[in-house]
Amino acid sequence: MTSIQIERLINEISKLPGLGRKSAQRIALYILKNREHSLLPLVKSLQDANDKIINCTNCGNIDTVDPCSLCGNNKRDLQTICVVEDVSDLWTFERIGFFRGLYHILGGSLSAINGVASNDLFLNKLFNRIEKQNVKEVILALSTTMEGQTTSHVISDKLERFSNLKITKLAQGVPIGGEVHYLDENTLHEAFQSRKQIN
Amino acid sequence: MTSIQIERLINEISKLPGLGRKSAQRIALYILKNREHSLLPLVKSLQDANDKIINCTNCGNIDTVDPCSLCGNNKRDLQTICVVEDVSDLWTFERIGFFRGLYHILGGSLSAINGVASNDLFLNKLFNRIEKQNVKEVILALSTTMEGQTTSHVISDKLERFSNLKITKLAQGVPIGGEVHYLDENTLHEAFQSRKQIN
Repeated sequence: MTSIQIERLINEISKLPGLGRKSAQRIALYILKNREHSLLPLVKSLQDANDKIINCTNCGNIDTVDPCSLCGNNKRDLQTICVVEDVSDLWTFERIGFFRGLYHILGGSLSAINGVASNDLFLNKLFNRIEKQNVKEVILALSTTMEGQTTSHVISDKLERFSNLKITKLAQGVPIGGEVHYLDENTLHEAFQSRKQIN
Repeated sequence: MTSIQIERLINEISKLPGLGRKSAQRIALYILKNREHSLLPLVKSLQDANDKIINCTNCGNIDTVDPCSLCGNNKRDLQTICVVEDVSDLWTFERIGFFRGLYHILGGSLSAINGVASNDLFLNKLFNRIEKQNVKEVILALSTTMEGQTTSHVISDKLERFSNLKITKLAQGVPIGGEVHYLDENTLHEAFQSRKQIN
């Protein structure tokens, strides 16, 4: 029905996360209709990104320099490392901007289903950094999913061998703007157990 | 925060239809993590599509040949033209496969808001085709939105000058699987007015 080039383009687009075949068709048609304003700049930005973007061998962030501009910034606090699953989590922290330490990106969480084992997770590098940078605190900022929490447990177990290292995790509780009667029972239970005195 | 190349890539992706900044970030990270399996094939398919895909000067379809493989197929019925707004509509008809005539792609519908006037719509070409191909029927298969219906009216007015030309439009009524109590009043009224005798 459609030519093989269009078919291939739709196919490549539909492999991207969150896109099905219908959206891929729509995007392919849009791109082909807007060659000057969409197709060519998109190709250029993809090629540029491919040529220039590298992984930071220190923290796993992506940047044009290695170490990345965060690891290379001497105003950041070397002794606090926030461990996140993915670069998008780092971006979220940086967008808000309250954290002034460094990051360590695992590149995922432990998952038997997806075949991610603990040596896939860039952990040895984390241990090296803790020693080299004389790290005082590791903040585990992983998802509160089953997999994220398992990963947190495994990492904090492995971090036990560093004496004087503070290991923390994000607080769990009622999200801001959350209504109590809509909360799931686990969150409510956690929020109740971790209640804080206010007087 | 992020390097200029990542920012540009996210920016180009977020211009695509149906994608916001969050989805664009997610796609950009996925592409950068999967260079061999996503970034490079995507660049190649975009470049191939850009090099090979052209518009059919006859019907407005996109293909690697001009006239397109539909217009060039001598098994199709030259004397019936189905007028659609966009290539995606043609694809929908062809996927189902019951229509054996040819198409004419307007490239949109009349829209004062988007500044689309009737001479933007590839209509003169349609009139030429009606004469040259000795067309017997034009089927207006446009959306039943305000803009699609206005476009249908304008085109059918302009087609009045061809004597012996049958002008038709898609039937309106209850969609298959539709429940009467969920129908909007216009659809129900139209379905009622166009009721068919079944005995």
